[in-house]
Amino acid sequence: MQNYKIVLSYDGTGFSGWQRQPERRTIQGELESALTKLAGKNVNVIGAGRTDAGVHALGQTANFKAALRLGDAELFKALNAVLPETIRIGTLERVGPEFQARRDAKSKIYRYRIWNAPQVGPFDVRYVLPWPNPLNVRRMREAAKIFVRKGDFSAFSSNRERDPVRTVSRSDIRTKGPEIIYTIQAAGFLRYMVRTIVGTLLEVGRGRLAADEIEELFAGGKRTLRSPTAPAKGLCLVRVEY
Amino acid sequence: MQNYKIVLSYDGTGFSGWQRQPERRTIQGELESALTKLAGKNVNVIGAGRTDAGVHALGQTANFKAALRLGDAELFKALNAVLPETIRIGTLERVGPEFQARRDAKSKIYRYRIWNAPQVGPFDVRYVLPWPNPLNVRRMREAAKIFVRKGDFSAFSSNRERDPVRTVSRSDIRTKGPEIIYTIQAAGFLRYMVRTIVGTLLEVGRGRLAADEIEELFAGGKRTLRSPTAPAKGLCLVRVEY
Repeated sequence: MQNYKIVLSYDGTGFSGWQRQPERRTIQGELESALTKLAGKNVNVIGAGRTDAGVHALGQTANFKAALRLGDAELFKALNAVLPETIRIGTLERVGPEFQARRDAKSKIYRYRIWNAPQVGPFDVRYVLPWPNPLNVRRMREAAKIFVRKGDFSAFSSNRERDPVRTVSRSDIRTKGPEIIYTIQAAGFLRYMVRTIVGTLLEVGRGRLAADEIEELFAGGKRTLRSPTAPAKGLCLVRVEY
Repeated sequence: MQNYKIVLSYDGTGFSGWQRQPERRTIQGELESALTKLAGKNVNVIGAGRTDAGVHALGQTANFKAALRLGDAELFKALNAVLPETIRIGTLERVGPEFQARRDAKSKIYRYRIWNAPQVGPFDVRYVLPWPNPLNVRRMREAAKIFVRKGDFSAFSSNRERDPVRTVSRSDIRTKGPEIIYTIQAAGFLRYMVRTIVGTLLEVGRGRLAADEIEELFAGGKRTLRSPTAPAKGLCLVRVEY
């Protein structure tokens, strides 16, 4: 059995997220079904990040083990030919048997796009959160910095987890025309963590939460109504680092 | 009755083109249905270009006459609220009763995107023609210039028309990374004319047609197999000039 590493991008719009589920169209499901056709037996695909339904990816990374007669260039082409065109393999390479895409990931970078203008164009509407009302970007920028830490992120997750400590190494906001783009990097994330941080930053931006109240939320150690979850479609898994 | 001019953009992917058809989702149909709801009586919308099924628009222009109680800013918002989010009104203004979007258009600019690389990303696949094999861009560029003329374009249309003379004022190719972008401007177009010219340029790019054979096609005065019609999804109506 050969171990393969793939980097892939997808438009999450029509999918029920990464993780395989019976009767649902998922990214993992589509990959496994394509590979199983090519290999003639079941192939299991392990992804670095289990993206939610509607979340996109530019650089998701995954691995799978299979015994195939196809050369690497043939496998790359055949896989893209069999997959839906909204899932694209960007690179495919052979790796040692010990490589595992989730466990070995050093960090993941997510980006969230907020479109802060009265209208969103028809070509962007699947990939951004439309926000027609004013936002105080300066305050959001300051608030974003507060999330750079090693700490208990329970206040920004939907689940209670046994080990809720995560290390965020980057959390910043930049603007590009009408867009407010939030970028976050961490070794690992709790469930809904990025979308809940974005929801919190939006509360800051609209003046319903002060930046220094974020420390109180951290200290509270549990999810509150002050941290809503932002919609999936603005979120994109940009890159996984090893 | 007030006459209104609107400039709109749309992702043509899920629509059966501009023109209203029974039982089909079309751009004109969606606009008329939205306006009829707001006006309480039938509203007829006239578009500058009748884009085909799957063709996109950044700056389609249209007009309609209606008696509405809504102010312009209200109408603008209400219309975008009622329309599907893949059709967006960009501007709306009152114009004199004589303005008619199709008849008064001085010229229209269309753009066709060819993605000349082995892979198309999942976010571009709806808007470009994937072309993984080599193309001779220099020859295509030369061939594109030949279409700048006032002449009989019957060889580049699917229909026989009574007056097949059209005046093309711009026809050029530029590249941007892996993309070959064709732009054409004319006062009016025959049916499928842009897509047939693109199909002809692709024949030149792959070496099956010499640039100087295009004059023979013009002279022949009718459609031949040497001018296939390029797929709709790479085409976009960029702007209408008045």
